[in-house]
Amino acid sequence: MARELIVALDGMGGDFGPEVIVAGAEIAHVRHPEVRFMIFGDETKIKAELTKNPRVAGACEVVHTEVSISMDDKPTQALRRGRKTSSMWMAIEAVKEGKAQVAVSAGNTGALMAMATLCLRTMPAIQRPAIAALWPTMRGESVVLDMGATIGPDAEQLVQFAVMGEAYARVLYGMDKPTVGLLNIGEEEVKGTEIVKGAAQILRSDVTGLNFYGFVEGDDIGKGTVDVVVTDGFTGNVALKTAEGTARQIAEYLRAAIQRSFFSKIGYFFAQSAFRTLREKLDPRSANGGLFLGLNGLVVKSHGGTDAIGFASAIDVAVDVAAADLVRKISTEMEVFAKRTEEKSAEVESAETGATVS
Amino acid sequence: MARELIVALDGMGGDFGPEVIVAGAEIAHVRHPEVRFMIFGDETKIKAELTKNPRVAGACEVVHTEVSISMDDKPTQALRRGRKTSSMWMAIEAVKEGKAQVAVSAGNTGALMAMATLCLRTMPAIQRPAIAALWPTMRGESVVLDMGATIGPDAEQLVQFAVMGEAYARVLYGMDKPTVGLLNIGEEEVKGTEIVKGAAQILRSDVTGLNFYGFVEGDDIGKGTVDVVVTDGFTGNVALKTAEGTARQIAEYLRAAIQRSFFSKIGYFFAQSAFRTLREKLDPRSANGGLFLGLNGLVVKSHGGTDAIGFASAIDVAVDVAAADLVRKISTEMEVFAKRTEEKSAEVESAETGATVS
Repeated sequence: MARELIVALDGMGGDFGPEVIVAGAEIAHVRHPEVRFMIFGDETKIKAELTKNPRVAGACEVVHTEVSISMDDKPTQALRRGRKTSSMWMAIEAVKEGKAQVAVSAGNTGALMAMATLCLRTMPAIQRPAIAALWPTMRGESVVLDMGATIGPDAEQLVQFAVMGEAYARVLYGMDKPTVGLLNIGEEEVKGTEIVKGAAQILRSDVTGLNFYGFVEGDDIGKGTVDVVVTDGFTGNVALKTAEGTARQIAEYLRAAIQRSFFSKIGYFFAQSAFRTLREKLDPRSANGGLFLGLNGLVVKSHGGTDAIGFASAIDVAVDVAAADLVRKISTEMEVFAKRTEEKSAEVESAETGATVS
Repeated sequence: MARELIVALDGMGGDFGPEVIVAGAEIAHVRHPEVRFMIFGDETKIKAELTKNPRVAGACEVVHTEVSISMDDKPTQALRRGRKTSSMWMAIEAVKEGKAQVAVSAGNTGALMAMATLCLRTMPAIQRPAIAALWPTMRGESVVLDMGATIGPDAEQLVQFAVMGEAYARVLYGMDKPTVGLLNIGEEEVKGTEIVKGAAQILRSDVTGLNFYGFVEGDDIGKGTVDVVVTDGFTGNVALKTAEGTARQIAEYLRAAIQRSFFSKIGYFFAQSAFRTLREKLDPRSANGGLFLGLNGLVVKSHGGTDAIGFASAIDVAVDVAAADLVRKISTEMEVFAKRTEEKSAEVESAETGATVS
């Protein structure tokens, strides 16, 4: 029998706090009736929301906390105010202590990353954690990382992102050998920063054992050219927000164009189902949930401004990765990778020594 | 009387060569009947195209060249094969020699940038050139730079991009004080790379005299939050291609959604004019034309895969900037900026000396 799956929720995170968190859990409960929730935060407020969402109430344990991290708290402020006391910290700590398998928070990214890193620590072979997003593509969906956890990673760190992202895609999509691409400004080997070129060199060798596609460009993300897109946190964050901005811009163009004439409005009436499909495709709520990778425990970050439907999507991601035991899988990958790298450099060394002797 | 405006065209550049270049000039000729063209390339081929486009033929001078740069030539190869002999080089040299006010090429970006930099040289106060794109926004259009000329610029170079981009926006949009934003992963001062933070510090001081808005994020580009968006070439290139990819992805979603049902197809019939408007809004050809900034002469890069309509847009950009004497304006700006920076550091020095004395 499968072990019971418990998801820890930061009940006070996000722009709307318990109202959205509990309503999101209610939606998630319908999809995952077997999952139990630990909700951390203001007991009175959370219990009031639970009476409005009676179905999930039976699957919830509420743990009272006094401190809430605000959306504007800087990471250092958050740690000072909320370490060991806030709903955010307590949700993460529940994962550390094995009381839950994954934590979900809609709180601010900087504070959440700082707390998660301090509480859970990075995995032995990982230097810096990354945030992985799910990106809707023409072929389905891809994993894109890092979305902003790491500014200025080096080549080796990008390779670590690749290994972690690949494990995530494998677990999430049930793929045997997901393809991995490095985001660059051209497909030719000579293009790009030294860091990207260095990472490509490692990925092209056989030390990682990944299905490395090579360089991809910005438009390849939406095309779904590869299953995993690897980039630094600055570029990844700009790319994601640019794509979101473009989608909103086009939706606005379309709305304005439809409004312009009587015939267009009639057309809209007939094509309503098509527009609904399009709206669903473009709904940022369905792709909500950034996974923190590289820590000794699973934490999912939901958009702060999302509603219950969006928060439920973040819980979906959490349930998927927790059920698949992702942390253990990534640890194993990283060990194999570290061993291969060692063997490789030993080989190179002995070859060099040999050359000197002969 | 205004001086005659002459545009030099690389007749052999792009995926389709003279066919698209000459047909593009024909379209541009209707909009700018006063402009004359010098077309460099294979005389036989170009003249054959001119007989098909008789209106522009009277406004063209054809200069025969033997060598054409291919779309795959690396910059070094291009220089070796085509320096002083290729259609690309000759078009740029025409600008240097004052025979034309601007050059337009649909040839490969790396080769064009290498040749333009070698032939025209960077302006005295500019360390590295940049490529500025025109980005359609909800408010109209913005200038975004750098789109890929410079990998890994420092803070000072980003500031130079800001000064150049602002001058471009002023000339292009006839604005008095265009707003300038620095692309970052958050609006807070603490976020981002050291380079971006350093550039912001300089832009916030009054040495540049720019209307500096502060940091903007990826989704602000499409919103049109600022008139000029400044970023490094890697990020800018990824952002542009990601936006193009997202636009194509949504167009594809929409097409598929419309095809799905009979009623949607009826709706499409009625809303045709709305869809046409949307298509025009999203047409990448209308925003074609990346301007090289920071050189002692004007060069416009057209997409290599564009058609005559797209190439005509690149000529539009060229005519606009040449008519406005942009190079001289940027030079003047940069001198003022350099002078202010000097005065500022002199002030700081004398203040420091004063402090030591007292």
